[in-house]
Amino acid sequence: MTSRAEAPTRRRLGPSERHAELVAAGLALVKEASLDRLTAPDVARAAGVSKALVFHYFPTQRDLQAAVARAGAEELVAEFARLDPALAYGDRLAAGLLGFITYIEQQPTSYAALSRTSGSDPQLRAIFEETRERVVQIIADAVGIDEPSPRLRLMLRGWIAMVEETTLHWLDERPMARDELIDLLTRAAFGLLPLAAAELPIPPSGGV
Amino acid sequence: MTSRAEAPTRRRLGPSERHAELVAAGLALVKEASLDRLTAPDVARAAGVSKALVFHYFPTQRDLQAAVARAGAEELVAEFARLDPALAYGDRLAAGLLGFITYIEQQPTSYAALSRTSGSDPQLRAIFEETRERVVQIIADAVGIDEPSPRLRLMLRGWIAMVEETTLHWLDERPMARDELIDLLTRAAFGLLPLAAAELPIPPSGGV
Repeated sequence: MTSRAEAPTRRRLGPSERHAELVAAGLALVKEASLDRLTAPDVARAAGVSKALVFHYFPTQRDLQAAVARAGAEELVAEFARLDPALAYGDRLAAGLLGFITYIEQQPTSYAALSRTSGSDPQLRAIFEETRERVVQIIADAVGIDEPSPRLRLMLRGWIAMVEETTLHWLDERPMARDELIDLLTRAAFGLLPLAAAELPIPPSGGV
Repeated sequence: MTSRAEAPTRRRLGPSERHAELVAAGLALVKEASLDRLTAPDVARAAGVSKALVFHYFPTQRDLQAAVARAGAEELVAEFARLDPALAYGDRLAAGLLGFITYIEQQPTSYAALSRTSGSDPQLRAIFEETRERVVQIIADAVGIDEPSPRLRLMLRGWIAMVEETTLHWLDERPMARDELIDLLTRAAFGLLPLAAAELPIPPSGGV
């Protein structure tokens, strides 16, 4: 629509590299600002490309936001997935919590916005749901359960919601040290899981 | 803007009665549909008044939605507040949970939408925050604590988030009976509170 020339692209990239570059630029931006306000011009500016190019890859603002949310979710899940399986349950859970809390601390605005606005958009909602289910499965795997029962899945989702809410609230008010928060949430998990999981193969030990 | 005549008003009401009537009409509508899609024309139609009259009371769609959300929050808080103080903690908590779950069951779309979209709007967010804090205080009162410590408040907020998430998830999949869900969440509360509340005056007893 505009007659303005496209900004010069810095180098030639293949489509998937370009896609990844734009998503990375968006992900860097939402460490500072809210995901639901991320726009194509922001990403174009940050990546040094034209708006038209961003629109070519992401026809709507929601497509762009969804791609960035998906990349953020991947980063977050990767935090959990790289935990040392040799650690005792309690230590692994505490390490996972530290990763999660540190991750949210780096981008509180964006995480809060995502978790609190995702319901209004089917794409974001689906990413959020899928990420929660993956985290449920990672935790179930960590305690040696391949197929969590509906009851255990429900309880794990509840615990994840608790972790998210307490972490966001903690960021606002910091009523205790980070280690204390992690300890509290780890203990909460070990208090809750036995309520839901007669199938837990062995009681958790070590680290708590 | 339109030349269409105003719909006839059914009767003369004072401003505060009219305000209450419009909010009640909105609240009835969001039992069936999502709050974040509630519009002035919907409310005008349901209340049998002109759109102009609705806009007079609620200049923006968000004002209307916020008023309806506030009324919904009042209803919800009233569910808890009318619990019999003579009941043992466990029974009172279970009765409160039954009220909450039943309330959400009656308007799942709206509640999910509110809880998941409130972050994108400062007015809705404030109502949501305030409601959570009130529920925290009601629970603290119920266990005999006037001023919950930051640690206990954090844990109670976490538990409330867990209740909300598990209830919404339970509505989707119904993996267990309602009573079983209530039992699970009551037990969860009694597993969690002692982690946060050295100040709990007496251990909970009865009902669990």
